[in-house]
Amino acid sequence: MTVASERHTELRHQDADIRARASRVIPGGMYGHMLANEHTLPPSYPQFYDRGEGALTWDVDGNRYIDFMCAFGPMLLGYRNPRVDAAVAAQLAIGDTLTGPSPRMVEFAELLTATIAHADWAMFAKNGTDATSAGVRIARAATGRSKFLKAAVAYHGANDWFTPRAAGVTAEDRANIVEFEYNDVASLEAALTEHAGDVAAIIVTPFRHDSFVAQEAVDPEFARAARRLATAHGAALLLDEVRTGFRLDVSGAWESLGVRPDLTAFSKALANGHPISALVGVDALRAAASEVYVTGSFWYSAVPMAAGIATVTEAVAQDAPRVIRDAGLRFKTGLEAQARAAGMPLELTGPVQMPLMIFADDVHKKRAFAFTDAAIRRGVLLHPWHNMFLSTAHTPEVVDDALARTQDAFDELASLDL
Amino acid sequence: MTVASERHTELRHQDADIRARASRVIPGGMYGHMLANEHTLPPSYPQFYDRGEGALTWDVDGNRYIDFMCAFGPMLLGYRNPRVDAAVAAQLAIGDTLTGPSPRMVEFAELLTATIAHADWAMFAKNGTDATSAGVRIARAATGRSKFLKAAVAYHGANDWFTPRAAGVTAEDRANIVEFEYNDVASLEAALTEHAGDVAAIIVTPFRHDSFVAQEAVDPEFARAARRLATAHGAALLLDEVRTGFRLDVSGAWESLGVRPDLTAFSKALANGHPISALVGVDALRAAASEVYVTGSFWYSAVPMAAGIATVTEAVAQDAPRVIRDAGLRFKTGLEAQARAAGMPLELTGPVQMPLMIFADDVHKKRAFAFTDAAIRRGVLLHPWHNMFLSTAHTPEVVDDALARTQDAFDELASLDL
Repeated sequence: MTVASERHTELRHQDADIRARASRVIPGGMYGHMLANEHTLPPSYPQFYDRGEGALTWDVDGNRYIDFMCAFGPMLLGYRNPRVDAAVAAQLAIGDTLTGPSPRMVEFAELLTATIAHADWAMFAKNGTDATSAGVRIARAATGRSKFLKAAVAYHGANDWFTPRAAGVTAEDRANIVEFEYNDVASLEAALTEHAGDVAAIIVTPFRHDSFVAQEAVDPEFARAARRLATAHGAALLLDEVRTGFRLDVSGAWESLGVRPDLTAFSKALANGHPISALVGVDALRAAASEVYVTGSFWYSAVPMAAGIATVTEAVAQDAPRVIRDAGLRFKTGLEAQARAAGMPLELTGPVQMPLMIFADDVHKKRAFAFTDAAIRRGVLLHPWHNMFLSTAHTPEVVDDALARTQDAFDELASLDL
Repeated sequence: MTVASERHTELRHQDADIRARASRVIPGGMYGHMLANEHTLPPSYPQFYDRGEGALTWDVDGNRYIDFMCAFGPMLLGYRNPRVDAAVAAQLAIGDTLTGPSPRMVEFAELLTATIAHADWAMFAKNGTDATSAGVRIARAATGRSKFLKAAVAYHGANDWFTPRAAGVTAEDRANIVEFEYNDVASLEAALTEHAGDVAAIIVTPFRHDSFVAQEAVDPEFARAARRLATAHGAALLLDEVRTGFRLDVSGAWESLGVRPDLTAFSKALANGHPISALVGVDALRAAASEVYVTGSFWYSAVPMAAGIATVTEAVAQDAPRVIRDAGLRFKTGLEAQARAAGMPLELTGPVQMPLMIFADDVHKKRAFAFTDAAIRRGVLLHPWHNMFLSTAHTPEVVDDALARTQDAFDELASLDL
């Protein structure tokens, strides 16, 4: 297999240059999920990216990758999806951020309430954090209570309640957070009982997608218990679909379990990469949702709403979760077989649409780093400790192309003692 | 003066239809700054907007307005500015939200640090709130302290610290906020003394721009005292330029006073309407800025950064603050003269680039509402209690056109007892 024409080189001249410039004008050289250093990502991992097309992305040195990160989720239908791009171009030619919202806002709210089973209303913001935070605030306004329950470790955003690192966060900011263990009904029940009468909301992800460890499906009994207990205690059940939205089930991640939340937060894939988030909810919380103060300078912007309408319409028409599930299953089956044959057993944990790689006997992630590194040098962008994402652009041909390259990567690793 | 061809009609068929639809799928029918009802805005005020071009905007009924709201600030260089739009189109054709940032991130940080006098580094987010919140968090991380000081009433964002309405906000969320009186050195000093050793930051706007009341320039002595006291108490001085950025002084709003903050938050006008915010700071806070956890799904998106580079470059090249100041002075002078002649004395308070209308003897805003209503029916979009915004697209011809229409509005009001 030749990769020369794709310029896969271990010398990253442009990337190194830009990192050096970044180190002067950005604290630590980078912030957020792509802060790539020797501790967080393998040495070959590109830091700066030039372009995307379908399932492919190019770094600033012109190296091409089959991208299994999908921008950490936002890319659902392929980079530069023609239908989404056409909607964006049409809206940009009229108006984006105007003095008030455009009709796209109402059209998008109508589409989401028609698509998501429990949704009677919708509100829009920019960050996933805006939507999860607004959900908690609405639950508090509705109940007059202070506490909210979240699973230990679970990430729900980057405000002072949720950040995994506590630098600059005060004890007061976290005084009203009570933790339970994911999939552990007894721990949820205990937390509710301990704070009986003061729990406004339970916030929970559709499955357990903490970084570094194996992802874990929700136990249907846990989901049903969360619903039952929330109702019994007069608390709102807030489903955090920021990461999962439109990859698991367009009508709601727990719909197949017969469990409907009171509130759901969406963002990432909602507009195929255009900046928008949404909180949807049930009628019982409508009055509280109209009482809380939520606003932002770009929360009316029409282009991301036009992109969202095109994305959700297309996701429903294509049954994107099914398409992506097929792609994910093909990738998981192929990659796990290659790993087994190479004597480096690997499991792609969690839903196949957004798997997280866990190698056997790899507590220190040495195998995960080495394999990710080898795959990247062959044009396949994976992640050693965060869940990955597939898209509808990951056709069988694309997945098979990736698997040919990962086979090559395993061959290289066979000679190493990992 | 004929306005017929611009379709100014008091019957808003489309707007009414869309409002009715909105009331079913959006809590309260709307959220945020354009929640227009009989208590907040005059009856003629459009809720939904179709398009913008230069200083003009059109509502969904096809009525055209000279827009003195500029999308509540974001529009700095005219809607659909050709240079910004070209940068956006060029970047969209390559890639927007990718798996990591594009070089635009570093280029924009380099441009901001070169443009803003005190800025040694920059970080980017989506909402103004993201930037002000990150600033407080960085100051806390740097000092190990909890409290921050803000002026009474002053709006600094929509997180649980800052919202003007407290629905759904807990006492703990606001436990670390200490208020002082804007322009009152003694009150600032008293707040610092009372919490000596536990103040992480003082957050302040470049001038007092509370809604409903007359805007107030900063007393240079107050600005200098804020700088001196922050330093003496080991607290960071955080200037909130979310609303003012690039309209007062491209190098920093207090630069002409010789006062440099430690941190400045920007958003609104930073990319002429594209969704981005920035926090810039001094070297002494660089380490703390690299320790806090700040991230968002769209914080690397390249298109808003490309738009920001084009916007700031153009704002500097044109000296946008000077151009907008000239436009604002022409508007203020003309409008105040018309009001005086009409026997309805009016002051456009605050900087002429972003004035707030205060009529004499108008505590209940009856005059402000009636005049705004009459102006809107003549194709001039004003605001009865929030500061307005001018842009570089408000040429002398545009301002004179607006003034011809406002003269007509005053003529109508002359017959009424207001």
